[in-house]
Amino acid sequence: MTATIIDGKGFAAGLRERIAGHVAGLKSQHGITPGLAVVIVGEDPASQVYVASKARLTAEVGMHSVKHELPRETSQAALLQLIDELNRDDAIHGILVQMPVPDQIDPNAVINAISPEKDVDCFTPANVGKLAIGLPGPVSCTPLGCLMLLRDQLGELSGKEAVIIGRSNLVGKPLAQLLLRDNCTVTMAHSRTADLASVVKRADIVVAAAGRPNMVKGDWLKPGATVIDVGINRVPAPERGEGKTRLVGDVEFDSAADVAGAITPVPGGVGPMTIACLLANTITTASLLNGLVPPKDLTP
Amino acid sequence: MTATIIDGKGFAAGLRERIAGHVAGLKSQHGITPGLAVVIVGEDPASQVYVASKARLTAEVGMHSVKHELPRETSQAALLQLIDELNRDDAIHGILVQMPVPDQIDPNAVINAISPEKDVDCFTPANVGKLAIGLPGPVSCTPLGCLMLLRDQLGELSGKEAVIIGRSNLVGKPLAQLLLRDNCTVTMAHSRTADLASVVKRADIVVAAAGRPNMVKGDWLKPGATVIDVGINRVPAPERGEGKTRLVGDVEFDSAADVAGAITPVPGGVGPMTIACLLANTITTASLLNGLVPPKDLTP
Repeated sequence: MTATIIDGKGFAAGLRERIAGHVAGLKSQHGITPGLAVVIVGEDPASQVYVASKARLTAEVGMHSVKHELPRETSQAALLQLIDELNRDDAIHGILVQMPVPDQIDPNAVINAISPEKDVDCFTPANVGKLAIGLPGPVSCTPLGCLMLLRDQLGELSGKEAVIIGRSNLVGKPLAQLLLRDNCTVTMAHSRTADLASVVKRADIVVAAAGRPNMVKGDWLKPGATVIDVGINRVPAPERGEGKTRLVGDVEFDSAADVAGAITPVPGGVGPMTIACLLANTITTASLLNGLVPPKDLTP
Repeated sequence: MTATIIDGKGFAAGLRERIAGHVAGLKSQHGITPGLAVVIVGEDPASQVYVASKARLTAEVGMHSVKHELPRETSQAALLQLIDELNRDDAIHGILVQMPVPDQIDPNAVINAISPEKDVDCFTPANVGKLAIGLPGPVSCTPLGCLMLLRDQLGELSGKEAVIIGRSNLVGKPLAQLLLRDNCTVTMAHSRTADLASVVKRADIVVAAAGRPNMVKGDWLKPGATVIDVGINRVPAPERGEGKTRLVGDVEFDSAADVAGAITPVPGGVGPMTIACLLANTITTASLLNGLVPPKDLTP
């Protein structure tokens, strides 16, 4: 193995420390305590773990953390009413509704109900558009985390060839906007790309966000490339015992680490950055809602 | 010369005929006359020519056409009040404010004042975001025109390598979204791209939208590539007489036509498509404002 392992977990911890500093500053200088409300409908165990972790880290950086746990059978009307209350609550600067929601609720109706000014996930069309145009606002959390890791690893990104695999609204598309803003030449590749291996071969920066375990092989990479693995896939791990599983990314780590210059591990790479950037976005929206300029180190 | 010349002027004429058919249908079946309001501030001669042409073609397809010509010294407040009136006018389904506006007016304030539901230029963040997410709404006119010409020329675009040169909010970025939706592998290149010629060389589809006369040379192209030239640059033409000028694109036409499979001319290529797509967008917004599904042949 030759690649530097990019320590997303460590970077995220440092980012949360800086966020705690900004929270303290907002409190002491402006009397503002940034508040994040997390809403979860139903008892999906994975979502519950994730939401509990968000709430804990929110409180840890000194923010006001509110958690709303609604029963599985909650109606869409009831959920929209709660969102409306949170939209009007001056103590709340960020609203996150944990997806997926149960079948009786239309996720688009939920997204459209959240005030764009409090949309810390950057789900609403208005915020997606602002990101594309380059106007200030919250930025999709995982892409913002990828950008921070890339800048930390490479410094200047201008002129680099970046290939993003996967064109989701949550990761691939907004990340393309961010890397373009940093003057990368950006290629968006996906399941219909004719010869993915040769497209990846030309990249100085590879971001894998396709949701396919171990898809990107080491011999696809340009030697020295920086690899950001957004995938989090649970696969069977019989070597750990019957019925056991483990997490792998979209990149075949061992073969990639022999060719890449730097690579994020899974877990411990991009994952911890996503929650940290959710907190960063809450500082951004709390600043904008109060007519302040958001801290430069938390925004693209 | 080996390339097929893509007849944008002819295609646009056919498109306007289809639009006239949709206008007639909306009138007879739903009692709706699509209305487009064009607002121009000041006496810039190029803008006046363009606005006059828009108004003429709007009327020609049977739409309700309104033109507001405001003096150069119009205040921002007065312009925003006019926009507010047009937003509330049920006879108007599309509002276009001709850019650039005079210095005393903030273009972003103008854009944000236009109701996204009537934003036929697709300037507002909400519509930019909808385009990225894939929700129905108006689509930036020039990119929509490019997409129509490409589909007409090539049929299925899935899996093709597309390179877009230029990353403007009006052309490059929204076109990337459209080509991605059609399953192209999309590269966004620009002034900071390290080796533009070699990036262009890999493309089945090249879209030049950089605003630099004759920048793309024939020997940059992959033989057989389809070339869409969005550039409209006025350059000196001493061969036509002293002080004379002519229009050229961003592609060096003669050398490119020897290598490309198909190419749009300048003028007569993309230009006429832009106005036709403005009319198409007015049908789309008129449909959506009245709870109707927009015609499939006018949308991506």
